[in-house]
Amino acid sequence: MSYNSFGHIFRVTTWGESHGPAIGCVIDGVPSRLAISAAEIQHFLDQRKPGQNRFTTQRKEADIVKIMSGTFEGMTTGTPISLMIENTDQRSKDYSDNKDKYRPGHADFTYMEKYGIRDHRGGGRSSARETACRVAAGAIARKILGDSIQVKAALVQIGDHEINRENWDWDEVGNNPFWCPDKAMVPVWEKYLDNIRKNGSSIGAVIEVHASGVQAGLGAPVYAKLDSDLAAAMMTINAVKGVEIGEGFNAARLTGEENADEMYMDADGKPAFNSNHAGGILGGISTGNDIVCRFSVKPTSSILTPRKTVDTQGKETEIVTKGRHDPCVGIRAVPIGEAMMACVIADHIMLHRAQQG
Amino acid sequence: MSYNSFGHIFRVTTWGESHGPAIGCVIDGVPSRLAISAAEIQHFLDQRKPGQNRFTTQRKEADIVKIMSGTFEGMTTGTPISLMIENTDQRSKDYSDNKDKYRPGHADFTYMEKYGIRDHRGGGRSSARETACRVAAGAIARKILGDSIQVKAALVQIGDHEINRENWDWDEVGNNPFWCPDKAMVPVWEKYLDNIRKNGSSIGAVIEVHASGVQAGLGAPVYAKLDSDLAAAMMTINAVKGVEIGEGFNAARLTGEENADEMYMDADGKPAFNSNHAGGILGGISTGNDIVCRFSVKPTSSILTPRKTVDTQGKETEIVTKGRHDPCVGIRAVPIGEAMMACVIADHIMLHRAQQG
Amino acid sequence: MSYNSFGHIFRVTTWGESHGPAIGCVIDGVPSRLAISAAEIQHFLDQRKPGQNRFTTQRKEADIVKIMSGTFEGMTTGTPISLMIENTDQRSKDYSDNKDKYRPGHADFTYMEKYGIRDHRGGGRSSARETACRVAAGAIARKILGDSIQVKAALVQIGDHEINRENWDWDEVGNNPFWCPDKAMVPVWEKYLDNIRKNGSSIGAVIEVHASGVQAGLGAPVYAKLDSDLAAAMMTINAVKGVEIGEGFNAARLTGEENADEMYMDADGKPAFNSNHAGGILGGISTGNDIVCRFSVKPTSSILTPRKTVDTQGKETEIVTKGRHDPCVGIRAVPIGEAMMACVIADHIMLHRAQQG
Amino acid sequence: MSYNSFGHIFRVTTWGESHGPAIGCVIDGVPSRLAISAAEIQHFLDQRKPGQNRFTTQRKEADIVKIMSGTFEGMTTGTPISLMIENTDQRSKDYSDNKDKYRPGHADFTYMEKYGIRDHRGGGRSSARETACRVAAGAIARKILGDSIQVKAALVQIGDHEINRENWDWDEVGNNPFWCPDKAMVPVWEKYLDNIRKNGSSIGAVIEVHASGVQAGLGAPVYAKLDSDLAAAMMTINAVKGVEIGEGFNAARLTGEENADEMYMDADGKPAFNSNHAGGILGGISTGNDIVCRFSVKPTSSILTPRKTVDTQGKETEIVTKGRHDPCVGIRAVPIGEAMMACVIADHIMLHRAQQG
Repeated sequence: MSYNSFGHIFRVTTWGESHGPAIGCVIDGVPSRLAISAAEIQHFLDQRKPGQNRFTTQRKEADIVKIMSGTFEGMTTGTPISLMIENTDQRSKDYSDNKDKYRPGHADFTYMEKYGIRDHRGGGRSSARETACRVAAGAIARKILGDSIQVKAALVQIGDHEINRENWDWDEVGNNPFWCPDKAMVPVWEKYLDNIRKNGSSIGAVIEVHASGVQAGLGAPVYAKLDSDLAAAMMTINAVKGVEIGEGFNAARLTGEENADEMYMDADGKPAFNSNHAGGILGGISTGNDIVCRFSVKPTSSILTPRKTVDTQGKETEIVTKGRHDPCVGIRAVPIGEAMMACVIADHIMLHRAQQG
Repeated sequence: MSYNSFGHIFRVTTWGESHGPAIGCVIDGVPSRLAISAAEIQHFLDQRKPGQNRFTTQRKEADIVKIMSGTFEGMTTGTPISLMIENTDQRSKDYSDNKDKYRPGHADFTYMEKYGIRDHRGGGRSSARETACRVAAGAIARKILGDSIQVKAALVQIGDHEINRENWDWDEVGNNPFWCPDKAMVPVWEKYLDNIRKNGSSIGAVIEVHASGVQAGLGAPVYAKLDSDLAAAMMTINAVKGVEIGEGFNAARLTGEENADEMYMDADGKPAFNSNHAGGILGGISTGNDIVCRFSVKPTSSILTPRKTVDTQGKETEIVTKGRHDPCVGIRAVPIGEAMMACVIADHIMLHRAQQG
Repeated sequence: MSYNSFGHIFRVTTWGESHGPAIGCVIDGVPSRLAISAAEIQHFLDQRKPGQNRFTTQRKEADIVKIMSGTFEGMTTGTPISLMIENTDQRSKDYSDNKDKYRPGHADFTYMEKYGIRDHRGGGRSSARETACRVAAGAIARKILGDSIQVKAALVQIGDHEINRENWDWDEVGNNPFWCPDKAMVPVWEKYLDNIRKNGSSIGAVIEVHASGVQAGLGAPVYAKLDSDLAAAMMTINAVKGVEIGEGFNAARLTGEENADEMYMDADGKPAFNSNHAGGILGGISTGNDIVCRFSVKPTSSILTPRKTVDTQGKETEIVTKGRHDPCVGIRAVPIGEAMMACVIADHIMLHRAQQG
Repeated sequence: MSYNSFGHIFRVTTWGESHGPAIGCVIDGVPSRLAISAAEIQHFLDQRKPGQNRFTTQRKEADIVKIMSGTFEGMTTGTPISLMIENTDQRSKDYSDNKDKYRPGHADFTYMEKYGIRDHRGGGRSSARETACRVAAGAIARKILGDSIQVKAALVQIGDHEINRENWDWDEVGNNPFWCPDKAMVPVWEKYLDNIRKNGSSIGAVIEVHASGVQAGLGAPVYAKLDSDLAAAMMTINAVKGVEIGEGFNAARLTGEENADEMYMDADGKPAFNSNHAGGILGGISTGNDIVCRFSVKPTSSILTPRKTVDTQGKETEIVTKGRHDPCVGIRAVPIGEAMMACVIADHIMLHRAQQG
């Protein structure tokens, strides 16, 4: 039991507040003798870094990761890997106006109800800044996955604008500021989000994460289900309100005939599936097909339109959040979703070999 | 770490296969001096019991629960509560035809890939029969919740037929075989499902679970989020493919203005919310509003239409599943969803007081 | 977190009271395809069974184990193994005289302080009867250890009478009612214990457990130390008050020169140790030498001499315990110590391969 | 499951090697609104700090602790407390001579067997330097214990020289470099250890830890026993080879009559014990009496006398360890034992209220 850890064998514990001296994580259970460098971790952190284009918050954090332990001469040693990212652009004054007001949609009220004390500067522990640690952990998880397993994510919906899946091209994902796999949708989203941004508004989104090359057999029939751990992992990301595997909620609309993934023997003489409605998981255990997971992200709660709220003294008031925020926080959730998928699969590889050798 | 347990303090471990002598569970961490009887647990088991109407499997299991430990003179003693339900209607012969074929949509193939051995009779450990243990555990969890917290669930969608939320009446839920809160939808579903059933087909569904009266402050800002544990819990239920909290996937379509739950001071001088888009959870912590969780259930994979598959010897073949199955397994998931919600909230009440006293 | 489980991957949860309908355990994480039968488990249970000679309690329990789940056609399936032992000789009346008195040395008072309710019949959950479940779990753990790892235990001290280690002969252990490896000590203990028994008194003991054939590399440098888990495991056995590894408390008397296990290259060209002061564990990790663990067991608290105590109403009184008890409960702790050693090593084999493959 | 964490609710994860940039820990589950400062933690770290007199290693580490997260304006916020101690006196060259040799009694060989890679500088992760993190965590645990619970430790034996318990005076413990409660023993130990030190030898020791003011009712009857968690905690301290509660191994020599702690009603009308052979724990649950725990520490393995060993290439060789080491590492284990006791009791206070409210 731990309030700030996730994973079973590949176990990540994060710490830090948005406006303290640093944030960081401790990653336990990593096998020894994996080559790893700070630069490799930094590569993934840079993907998540804010302020890279006009569609994400203009908060500028260098987000430089330091390896504090767990490696020796460029290799993991089997001991806990401690990573630290110093907070360099804190501008606490941005938040002082609203320090006693509960921002609707934020954790201010609930945090205060639970703990009776709150670091009001930028969300404190509830800040999405914590997710930088997940991305760093994901970089290490990928070392366990090796080259044969690929984890990739894309943004598939902003507001009512969904991509056309027939246009899906993974190579496009890196060519636009949205991680969008549908080239045709990019200009639509640009125009749409520019409008949202100029109005000081925000909008939700849906992210889809794929893991390919995952062996059949990861997971378990009942509570250590691979999909259960994925759902838990994605739901811990800030602002996530829903998680799906394969057909997800659409499965409610399908008949048994439509939803069945029929099987055949492939060219290599191995059992294979004609389709992947299951999203790569049957009965909690991976099928060998791509693991497909989607999650929804709510609109950023910090908006310029005044909202009614109350303050810590129990007075009704209004709030306008002037901080530097994302018009669509879902964009920056893409590398985070990837990281969580990588962590969960790395963990299940280890859990599987624990039991089955 | 455990492959067959869930919960942190209120911790449930289940065991048993569909065609072994019995199934059961051990519930650890239950406070002492709660009055509990087998009859109270039986009440909830009877709700889940198959064969009660033509819309659920005709498999007839008495499903009589026995309390094997953890109570003394009708009160809990603080020691593990062991519950056992004997398997009485096993009819293994129903399954012998298909014992070497992998049933599409079932865990047959993945289970075999993982373990290399499989109890082919009725799904073995992967059978939904395991969920009876969850319902039993939920009955005990409700004792921890007490009278002030109410957990209720309803079926809100079968196939493309969604209820009209304006007709929602909790009192209707017990008046029809579907746990449907919309009286007007009942005849529609009846006709629709009769057709599905006669065709030997099946269809998916969506269940919605509410918990009211939950205090603000349960959960945690990062990994022990209340919504993360709910997502994990619901996703462990057989056939579930998606989980949502509050607006869920619809949050992707909303602006920050639309999604904000504004606050005011209520008549008792307490902070309150004008709406509940958040589904009762902000930043992983309960708000005091109703916890609202939905999950989708895929169509039963056992259908009468032949499906292409392969067998354990690697031969392509066809399969027809003639066993006694549910045309819409989502119906029987309603009391299971309730039970999981009750277990998660009971656990978080205990987790909260562990840390905060 | 669980109050009634132990182990990480090989995880055992026990349940049951001495005077309920049954006791049992659920063993999770067991690899599939291990051949196991109830008879093999029964073999070890019979070693622990009371009433086999005049030196152990005359309480007669058949202690027949039933496998309730987790095997199919004589092989483990990878799912939780549920074992149950029905309570058949309960004689609750033996205990009714003292039901409101706190027995000195027993958990009566502390249990009541914690839970405010108590099953007074024979110790309830605190009864040593629970240890039958450990022995059953140990039988399954041995299947994971395989033939190359041997776990054996012996009684090495009763009262002031310690064995002569120069006489140590494992083959003698099964030839006497004490699990004594020193043939010369057997008649001394017989005479000594007969006297203790006739006086209605009791005496403490020391048990030593060896595991040979354990590979180097199990454990971890800091908190998942093999010796830490062994200490925890042995200390959970009823009446245990001390645990040692290798030199144990004698290490306090040794110099660095005396305590050093020097190394050399053995005939197979492998690093080896000239001695085993370390008890097979250095820095929390196994060396490849025999794991050597000792634990002390206090004298049975139930004695015929009246002792001063208080009752649940706060009145001072005296107590005499007339139940059927062991003059030296340490004797029956021998197979229990073996079982715990087997469980811990099985668990660490799985933990090691989880991380290191 | 975690290889580098301990505790259930009060959960400590440590990281760092002796010769990396820093060591540190993350303490999760701490209640909010406890006043805590770096200075208070530093107070306890200074007790453990090496180089304070001629009987401990002359390695000079400033050991300055920094609070990196989890507090706001001097109060805990309920989020993980991250503490960091930079390594400032590393002198890696001291170790280069022996970098390929396995030091007898150290974890060099076993670490290499497990992980296949090793940071040879000063023990790396296996260095006792890690224990600074425990002391820091203990300082925070004491905040949970409050003023009514006192945790104190003393050194009671060095080599064959045991204190006279009749001279026990807690006030003397701070007056000598050994944490010795027996004033008369101090000059004996001084002379004895001076001799050990001059010879480049080392010697073992026994530490005794008391916790007074602990409420009755902490712990559990079976696996969450307070004594089991204490045994595990103490056994994770470097060089510890044995742990005892109350009479410990001496219990083997006692009769039931001698070992019984008789009860009476005290002046306040509460049940009390005439003696404390149990060491404050009966059936795994605290009695309200002082918790008494002893542990043995082996002699420092680094000595000046050449020892036979092998190197990583499989060659036989000799080794002399010239680094700066402790003649009796047990001395510095005193504040560590205190810290572990404080952590375990804090954790069990939280575990108890989780279940029992």
